Amino acid sequence: MFSTQPIGYVRSPYKDSHAIPKGLGAKHDAEGVLEIQAEFEPGLTDIEGFSHLFVIWEFDRSEGFSLLVEPPSDNRPHGMFATRSPRRPNPIGLTVVELLGREGHLLRVRGIDMLDGTPILDIKPYLSNVPQEKLRRGWLAEAEARAAAKP
Amino acid sequence: MFSTQPIGYVRSPYKDSHAIPKGLGAKHDAEGVLEIQAEFEPGLTDIEGFSHLFVIWEFDRSEGFSLLVEPPSDNRPHGMFATRSPRRPNPIGLTVVELLGREGHLLRVRGIDMLDGTPILDIKPYLSNVPQEKLRRGWLAEAEARAAAKP
Repeated sequence: MFSTQPIGYVRSPYKDSHAIPKGLGAKHDAEGVLEIQAEFEPGLTDIEGFSHLFVIWEFDRSEGFSLLVEPPSDNRPHGMFATRSPRRPNPIGLTVVELLGREGHLLRVRGIDMLDGTPILDIKPYLSNVPQEKLRRGWLAEAEARAAAKP
Repeated sequence: MFSTQPIGYVRSPYKDSHAIPKGLGAKHDAEGVLEIQAEFEPGLTDIEGFSHLFVIWEFDRSEGFSLLVEPPSDNRPHGMFATRSPRRPNPIGLTVVELLGREGHLLRVRGIDMLDGTPILDIKPYLSNVPQEKLRRGWLAEAEARAAAKP
């Protein structure tokens, strides 16, 4: 295996994990900057043609892991790999962001749900969607349906 | 930062990278198995409710990185972060697979584009699509258009 290294850091309005919108219906439209290390700037060539990016990052303020977790969007436990819990064997986070613009090694993005200072491990172009009619969303869809049915 | 650890391995029909479909119009409908380590099986609870998963894995047969790469789908160079090149500062791959079924710690999936034996770092549920009308695909869309325009 390998030791991770930061290719840059997230500049985010969120200084504390309590400030990040969570749970059912949470909207992630916060804007921020992916500050890529200057030495990697040539690796960003042509990235501005893509509307959306995958950002792979480190949960650097998380320790250890739990196999079963109760996510903020449900009051029932689920397997950690069926959730976005930060407490994972490899503390890797994944976020899809909208790319608003690039200035050199700085990527302005919308859809940040990471803390300020979060180390970035990788960036990849978002190339295609799963066909909408084939997408099933498991316990999350069930939790949404239960919440909607509440009087 | 942290040292990665495998949570399992990919069982894939591809024993050699030349066998993996690449380039424009490449279809990834190969079936395979994500063999998660038995100790992590409880972490898979409820995962069968999701039709699609993100698989985060290691390019374990790749060395070093190149900032500019010529991807199989185009004959022009692009920034590595605007491609899925294996030669990245952190050798992390990301694949969306369709979950066909689970037997204990084994996930049968479609859409494999990894080599047999690839170490898996993480699995996450695929929760939502980018709105189709907002998705732009940069150099890849341009390369497709050029290929389609060829006599």
